[in-house]
Amino acid sequence: MKTPVDLLIINAGQVATCASQDGPKRGPALRDPGLIDHGAVACKDGLIVDVGPTDALAARYQADETVDANGRAVIPGLVDPHTHVVYAGDRVGEFELRIQGASYMEIMAAGGGIVSTMKATRAASVEELVASALPRLDAMLALGTTTAEIKSGYGLETGAELRMLQAAAELDARHPMDIVPTFLGAHAVPPEYAGRTDDYANLVVEEMIPAAAAWYEGSDFAARGVPLFNDVFCEQNAFDVAQSRRVLEAGLARGLPVKAHVDEFTPLGGLSLAVELGAVSADHLDATTPEEGARLAASGTVGVVLPAVNFNLGSAHFADARSLIDAGAALALATDINPGSAPCPSMPLVMAMACRYQKLLPAEALNAATINAAHALALGDRIGSIEAGKQADLLILDAADYRHLAYEFGGNLVRTVIKRGRIVRRNGKI
Amino acid sequence: MKTPVDLLIINAGQVATCASQDGPKRGPALRDPGLIDHGAVACKDGLIVDVGPTDALAARYQADETVDANGRAVIPGLVDPHTHVVYAGDRVGEFELRIQGASYMEIMAAGGGIVSTMKATRAASVEELVASALPRLDAMLALGTTTAEIKSGYGLETGAELRMLQAAAELDARHPMDIVPTFLGAHAVPPEYAGRTDDYANLVVEEMIPAAAAWYEGSDFAARGVPLFNDVFCEQNAFDVAQSRRVLEAGLARGLPVKAHVDEFTPLGGLSLAVELGAVSADHLDATTPEEGARLAASGTVGVVLPAVNFNLGSAHFADARSLIDAGAALALATDINPGSAPCPSMPLVMAMACRYQKLLPAEALNAATINAAHALALGDRIGSIEAGKQADLLILDAADYRHLAYEFGGNLVRTVIKRGRIVRRNGKI
Repeated sequence: MKTPVDLLIINAGQVATCASQDGPKRGPALRDPGLIDHGAVACKDGLIVDVGPTDALAARYQADETVDANGRAVIPGLVDPHTHVVYAGDRVGEFELRIQGASYMEIMAAGGGIVSTMKATRAASVEELVASALPRLDAMLALGTTTAEIKSGYGLETGAELRMLQAAAELDARHPMDIVPTFLGAHAVPPEYAGRTDDYANLVVEEMIPAAAAWYEGSDFAARGVPLFNDVFCEQNAFDVAQSRRVLEAGLARGLPVKAHVDEFTPLGGLSLAVELGAVSADHLDATTPEEGARLAASGTVGVVLPAVNFNLGSAHFADARSLIDAGAALALATDINPGSAPCPSMPLVMAMACRYQKLLPAEALNAATINAAHALALGDRIGSIEAGKQADLLILDAADYRHLAYEFGGNLVRTVIKRGRIVRRNGKI
Repeated sequence: MKTPVDLLIINAGQVATCASQDGPKRGPALRDPGLIDHGAVACKDGLIVDVGPTDALAARYQADETVDANGRAVIPGLVDPHTHVVYAGDRVGEFELRIQGASYMEIMAAGGGIVSTMKATRAASVEELVASALPRLDAMLALGTTTAEIKSGYGLETGAELRMLQAAAELDARHPMDIVPTFLGAHAVPPEYAGRTDDYANLVVEEMIPAAAAWYEGSDFAARGVPLFNDVFCEQNAFDVAQSRRVLEAGLARGLPVKAHVDEFTPLGGLSLAVELGAVSADHLDATTPEEGARLAASGTVGVVLPAVNFNLGSAHFADARSLIDAGAALALATDINPGSAPCPSMPLVMAMACRYQKLLPAEALNAATINAAHALALGDRIGSIEAGKQADLLILDAADYRHLAYEFGGNLVRTVIKRGRIVRRNGKI
């Protein structure tokens, strides 16, 4: 007597499970994709109920729908744990300026950069923010991302910041992708607070964070146990370590777990602060010192590197992810998709960059884009690997070997996207 | 009384014509995308018959099919003038080796690299070569490439080289994309000639080139005036300048115009040789000296740079395309798609790389990927721009401004691909 399931995927050339029993993967575990040859995955009620050899699962389960993977590889849905995908306007003009030599910090100091996005975002309604973000989420989903974090941080005033969070909630409701929200009121100092960073930090601490926490309590995110993170951009010309500490501690006092942008340009000590505060993730790490890297490695904080940003700057310098991994850090990858420093929806391209410029092996890049990225969102118990009990977020690749996802670049090897046990995207040929 | 046409594209937010009256674009002309705001394009019998403002063309033409671009940008179909897209096998294992430190030349010296592709290709039938290349061409077409060059060079023996050319002809017949063939018997020295490069060059000169030229004479390519190029890899551990000259002159004697791989790793003088022989293009140029760059700039030869190769190596070094353009060279971009050094089907990603790492402006990248790439195939009179009389190879982008094609990266902004006046691909959302 076979057990009934909703969906059975059979004849995968390989299932790369990325399974992990003990939190995010580190060290040698990061090199293990958890391969099952000639594999199968059984799903019911949106969850994975079994994974194993095709012969065994075909004998065990009776499925409403059977998908023959025909020798193709099956991997977990990709998780993008750092995005700014909600915004208004674009920055294509600034892109031309940067080609001609202007730096990110110069453009920001000149009132361009994030301020132009802030102005457009402040002027946008929730519905306009949602409408402009939906096609970007479509692009991300088509490229295999089944869960994405979305940060606020282009409002930089209480009302606009809340509208960004509301847009994230609306996108979560309307799009197949799962969304995880992050409050980032301390993304930059808005022009009206120029030279008064402490005053703006006070506004974030005293008004914005309480408002964001109150909004979250009434949201579907809270109802489903999806966290609202509190984040800060700890950097020269943004928030120093003392200001960052105040912002992050104010969030912790309201129950908002910590994320932090640290060491993108300048090693201010933000990584040590993040580790001290038990941050779920510390992101960027381009300028991290070996001493602070060792602290990250000894901590429970996941390091998130964002090579599309370095690429976008035409930089030869990338975060030293190889050394961080070798030191024992739990490392994840993200796109950082945003209109200024990373107009990039593609986790597979980020994996390809990480393999080439940060010397991750394909298995390390895959684990960094799945199970470790899930842990960077404190959702490692729900998503990020193909294990019984986890959400049935799965990709079928147009390749027999998962390594092709990082080996090839520029196209789209994601053939089929399955979200909560349901096929939500068939790319066919591209 | 309106003139009947087959296809009329209206309401383009802009038509970037890339029009050029005088051969490939150089200097300031390379910065001119030839924009027509609120534009339209009329096509008949596979050719463009008119391009101009929507109001004017809508008044002038009656079309069997009208496509409303709804404010989106229309650009010429992209031309990929340097590919090795016909091959058997893959090199994903070698990719992992390279991440761990082995260089291209080390892998080649160790008998890996191109030799592994050669063995697989020699063992493949024409039909097998065609079948494995077709999905790659599909991926390229979906990303906007409407004409691609295809090189032989993985056979390295007369029979297998001819099978590769036959596969290129078969792909041209079976796929919507136009193919331009290149004979590259002198791609590497096969193992059976190890240490006897002159003997292998003799084989190329005395047996292969005559055989390739004879095959070409009876091919559809010759019937349609599409050239067969003769190419050589002028590099240490491949062919020196004297050997390259013999190979290229043997082709010229049979009517085969010159292409050459030069200065990829070592400036041997191959670029001066290519210019002296009136090469249609000289490709790679990573190690080109300013002196030889000046010779290129003063010549009719188009320089083709291949940044996906540098990216694939995780290199911080890219061909100095900026200086070559500033010196007055006619520059084109290509993917170099191949299983070893560039598993990349995407001209838009190559444009994005060129803007970031080679400091091309978006307009320069667009012209380099269209009109100049067409001239790098000696087809600048037929394709590469939106001008009356040219082939109706057109793209409609998912953006109002052509610059987005280089500004964003990793997704696919090509919405609709029109080949010879016919819609051959609708990507819709990705």
